[in-house]
Amino acid sequence: MEELKERIKSEGVIASQQVLKLDAILNHQVDPALTMDMGRAFASRFASEQVTKVVTVESSGIAVAFAVALELGVPMVFARRKKTLLADPDSYVERVPSFTKGIVTDLMLPKRFIKKEDRILLIDDIIANGDAARGLVKIIHSGEATLVGAGIVVEKCFQSGAQSLRDQGIRVESLVRIQSLGEDGVVFAD
Amino acid sequence: MEELKERIKSEGVIASQQVLKLDAILNHQVDPALTMDMGRAFASRFASEQVTKVVTVESSGIAVAFAVALELGVPMVFARRKKTLLADPDSYVERVPSFTKGIVTDLMLPKRFIKKEDRILLIDDIIANGDAARGLVKIIHSGEATLVGAGIVVEKCFQSGAQSLRDQGIRVESLVRIQSLGEDGVVFAD
Repeated sequence: MEELKERIKSEGVIASQQVLKLDAILNHQVDPALTMDMGRAFASRFASEQVTKVVTVESSGIAVAFAVALELGVPMVFARRKKTLLADPDSYVERVPSFTKGIVTDLMLPKRFIKKEDRILLIDDIIANGDAARGLVKIIHSGEATLVGAGIVVEKCFQSGAQSLRDQGIRVESLVRIQSLGEDGVVFAD
Repeated sequence: MEELKERIKSEGVIASQQVLKLDAILNHQVDPALTMDMGRAFASRFASEQVTKVVTVESSGIAVAFAVALELGVPMVFARRKKTLLADPDSYVERVPSFTKGIVTDLMLPKRFIKKEDRILLIDDIIANGDAARGLVKIIHSGEATLVGAGIVVEKCFQSGAQSLRDQGIRVESLVRIQSLGEDGVVFAD
């Protein structure tokens, strides 16, 4: 995804050595053509896995997950970050801290959308400490579904999230991997 | 959108005379093929409007708005419902009540994503009292952009949101219009 690297370099804003703001391409504004390229890249990498469902968490994961699901021809399911008045009591709930929001939230997904026979591809936009991703993994395991892997748009290698998933034996595919953020700008790992 | 009506009848859950839960097709699970049909329907209805940007609010509007933006070949932008640690001080903020969440939230959109020369199509999944939609309209007006209209997947005609937009002179296009919810199930207006 060379184009994605270029867009990150030109449109990403380095807020600190830990935080890269990608509002212009992921977190507020989305380029449909670029996002479909991401979707095709993930669909291709997991093509042999007979994926039955793509799972993500609101909000920035939704557009990418939709693109993957469209390419694979399967439903996309998203967890919500807190309960609403309409909360289904028959839901899986996992409490997770949010790195960017600085708060604790509950991930919630109705149980009926995760079936034992599902082969699930987890998609997320950015992985830092991986709290949201690990919460989703727990929900998928609670539903006794098979997790075929995780597709991450931007992996921040200097934080532990992606490695913590790999340490659980989960296949993690990242479109771009960032080694560091700082005075040298965005330094990619490969 | 006859297929959408069928899906609403078969998969929607009537929680009360006011509330229809569409978790299976809009609010937690998304069928990419059906969503692309929605996207094509909106793109077709607003084809002559030279839309430059599709704007929605997280989370359930994102997949539909993405589909519209993909069809139109323009960026999709989504407002967030509250500030994060990464909040851009240079953002438009509108305080709105949420009908389904029973709370007040701030809609936030960085100012740089709404330009004076933009011709914006607003997209949302369900319109009830229209608070979120009116908040988005205010943000679009704050940015001095042109609002070409609003595309709504499900209009609840027995609540005032869509009418309040029409009363402002805004063109509102709904894919399905619901007259009532109750013992007779979902009754469509046309």
